[in-house]
Amino acid sequence: MDHDRILLEHGGGGLLSHELVTGIFLPLFRNACLERLEDSAVITLGDRKLCFTTDSYVIDPLFFPGGDIGSLAVHGTINDLSVCGGKPLMMSAGFILEEGFPMEDLRRISRSMAEAAQKAGVSIVTGDTKVVARGAADGLFINTSGVGIIEYPSPLSVASIEPGDAVIVSGTIGDHGATVLSKRRELGLISEIRSDSAPLNGLIGSILEASPNVHCMRDPTRGGLGAILAEIAAQSGFRITIEETKLPVREEVRGICEILGFDPLFLANEGKVAVFCSPADACLILDKMKNHEYGRDAALIGFVGKRNGEGLILNTSVGGSRVVDLPLGELVPRIC
Amino acid sequence: MDHDRILLEHGGGGLLSHELVTGIFLPLFRNACLERLEDSAVITLGDRKLCFTTDSYVIDPLFFPGGDIGSLAVHGTINDLSVCGGKPLMMSAGFILEEGFPMEDLRRISRSMAEAAQKAGVSIVTGDTKVVARGAADGLFINTSGVGIIEYPSPLSVASIEPGDAVIVSGTIGDHGATVLSKRRELGLISEIRSDSAPLNGLIGSILEASPNVHCMRDPTRGGLGAILAEIAAQSGFRITIEETKLPVREEVRGICEILGFDPLFLANEGKVAVFCSPADACLILDKMKNHEYGRDAALIGFVGKRNGEGLILNTSVGGSRVVDLPLGELVPRIC
Repeated sequence: MDHDRILLEHGGGGLLSHELVTGIFLPLFRNACLERLEDSAVITLGDRKLCFTTDSYVIDPLFFPGGDIGSLAVHGTINDLSVCGGKPLMMSAGFILEEGFPMEDLRRISRSMAEAAQKAGVSIVTGDTKVVARGAADGLFINTSGVGIIEYPSPLSVASIEPGDAVIVSGTIGDHGATVLSKRRELGLISEIRSDSAPLNGLIGSILEASPNVHCMRDPTRGGLGAILAEIAAQSGFRITIEETKLPVREEVRGICEILGFDPLFLANEGKVAVFCSPADACLILDKMKNHEYGRDAALIGFVGKRNGEGLILNTSVGGSRVVDLPLGELVPRIC
Repeated sequence: MDHDRILLEHGGGGLLSHELVTGIFLPLFRNACLERLEDSAVITLGDRKLCFTTDSYVIDPLFFPGGDIGSLAVHGTINDLSVCGGKPLMMSAGFILEEGFPMEDLRRISRSMAEAAQKAGVSIVTGDTKVVARGAADGLFINTSGVGIIEYPSPLSVASIEPGDAVIVSGTIGDHGATVLSKRRELGLISEIRSDSAPLNGLIGSILEASPNVHCMRDPTRGGLGAILAEIAAQSGFRITIEETKLPVREEVRGICEILGFDPLFLANEGKVAVFCSPADACLILDKMKNHEYGRDAALIGFVGKRNGEGLILNTSVGGSRVVDLPLGELVPRIC
């Protein structure tokens, strides 16, 4: 940790975020739960397993095609619980508002949160509101935390990944990142691109019900699919090989990426999950996904190889192959 | 709700906060848990009762005599769980940082959080960090959420309060508010005044172990003791009468209040609890408090009267008596 001030990239879900966590938070807060560095903490209570997660949302703009900060905050916490195998039990909502924020926007965002929670079958049971003076915050930030109950018998964790595991992604990548990017830059592209922000508890529940051989799941938000796969490869020591030609990418997203010089592999998603499972169950899981409204474009994108520390390998569409490194930070600040 | 923009007072824990909650959040998020409007949500899981709470901290300044935003955020969530009878199980920490924030301050604040958590026997098991550009936040905001387990047999709730209940406060009031106020105004008072920021799980645990006749507890943070008692009087319909001469107030706090024209009854506390209990157990509970490091100045300050909707009545030191209304907002913005 050789920075003496916080940089934007420290919040980007990439290498600098990782440095902040391992350089400051882990050594100080030291406990087995936190050190697993999964999307939720898992704790045992009697004969039950609970999971617990938190996320703050600072997205700019607050409203975007396909959603707003409210639905995003609800989906994000539901998804973090779901990828740990947790059925969401309850959520909290903490608002930090800037003085002068339009009441109508707060009402619209709260309504969107309520609808998102209801659609996913989760209750917002506790909350908090703070207001700071004009200029001390940018409109509205929301924190959501959530508690879930885990009934899946085997632990879903990076530590459960095995060589030979199939890597599946539940749909097109980069939709959320590309949407916010095009909205923020006021590109005025004539495109139908929308954020993929969605609750994944239903989709994930149907997978876990169908297969006892799911080993690990992650939702590729900040940093995109590339960041989470590179991180998992680094954490586990396994080589992970993915095929560029198999990556589902919308034409509009590809177009925006080409114009702006971005890679969809590193653009944020807010309604996708990457699944590591036994290869024997890959087809079954793909099938389950394709039959679900949030998994129609699911694809088998790669496999887990030997534990040789090679990291994430991308076989490119032109027949080459390269190591994919964890990005320094997010490509687009305040993406969530 | 006749404001079309958010005012500072909407975050103050007073009347406008109440309007925001009842005007926007409650109708939209509607569920039985939230509607109780206690410090934590209580849910049943099998044969266990869990409580869940969230709070965002935006205090200015970040460091103050007696603590900092880190220890405050840990104590606050521990206390919200404790007053619902919950033994804290686990906590989350969500950071929103402004680009350029000094790394050394983040380290110091994180260390303070870790120490506060360790002292109270609670683990920070999950977290999140977001960074926004310079000018989009004021330094650092922290959200902490927490989950606790309730073993106290009877429900601690406004609904459990009975006529004749004793009202006890665990120590001097207004210490935190007066400290932040004098620090912020750079009063340069030669005073030893310090925030009372402290974890109350130990003190509250000892009370609950000693008496089965505790009915309700609250920690009088934003808005002070006056706001929570007025709120409880309004919610329950009971008249609550307190004696001004019995209110424990430090000389230094009284001095600051006299200079600035504040009332200690409405200044924030961060390490105090107000307890409603059967009058027969009042002495026992006072004794338990006085023997605890965070309860030495505990005092019996009043009683619950008839359910006649009169609200909170203050018998003043000069022999008069007046109704105490819920303040519009906090006297000092960004007090926590």
